Amino acid sequence: MTEFKLHPQLAQDCLLIKDLKLSRLLLMNNSDFPWCILVPRRVALTELHDLTEADQVQFLHESSSVCRAMQNVFASENHNDQTDKSAGQCGKMNIASLGNIVPQLHVHHVLRYPHDAAWPKPVWGFAPATPYAEEHGQLLCEKLASVI
Amino acid sequence: MTEFKLHPQLAQDCLLIKDLKLSRLLLMNNSDFPWCILVPRRVALTELHDLTEADQVQFLHESSSVCRAMQNVFASENHNDQTDKSAGQCGKMNIASLGNIVPQLHVHHVLRYPHDAAWPKPVWGFAPATPYAEEHGQLLCEKLASVI
Repeated sequence: MTEFKLHPQLAQDCLLIKDLKLSRLLLMNNSDFPWCILVPRRVALTELHDLTEADQVQFLHESSSVCRAMQNVFASENHNDQTDKSAGQCGKMNIASLGNIVPQLHVHHVLRYPHDAAWPKPVWGFAPATPYAEEHGQLLCEKLASVI
Repeated sequence: MTEFKLHPQLAQDCLLIKDLKLSRLLLMNNSDFPWCILVPRRVALTELHDLTEADQVQFLHESSSVCRAMQNVFASENHNDQTDKSAGQCGKMNIASLGNIVPQLHVHHVLRYPHDAAWPKPVWGFAPATPYAEEHGQLLCEKLASVI
């Protein structure tokens, strides 16, 4: 069986948070938006419904954990400077499996706020990424890893 | 318990396909893209992880069924005029839960092709919708309902 290998575009654009039971969890290296990506470590999959039923259920667990961890960690970051009543103080999750550019199955988890730069539009293709200062990116990965 | 009521924006933008066990299945009234929406018939939910675990599993079943039905039905529509090797002949699913504009939990299922008008960008906010000719929209809803 071929081994799982992260798509080079994802490897380039993201920081590694940790491997969960099924998925590799990444932080998009873009300080404009709180943005994690789950990549199920299965070979040659492009669609969520290509996962076995057991893997789909596991994926849901991991996705829910990621949402809660993001709302927990980023609430203490600078993203809650303003009170966003329309999205709730903990923000609105945008979850999406697109894959039009990177075919390897991966699922975006983006925490959105009415004061973010792209609101209410989607973040994909919005603007070039603003990478994290190196220490900040590492710290965020550690914080997220510790609560998932 | 308050009764489920479809958000007026979704009611305005979509045609009804049918009610599945958990979700209301809609066809976005936009002939530019094959585009269905699943709305779990639960009250006051905004996030996928607000669903109970049992509902999440049921949602996955319904989402997978919708993907297969769309690939089946739209393959016989005019969307396969060209051979799209990069996305496969059956297209690439874009699945997303956004909710930045309509807060009621709803999940987009869009079948994408490299020859579609927005490829490879996301479809949200791309352009004003081009409604289906009435008979065509109804026929599509009936076809989709018959295979789900």
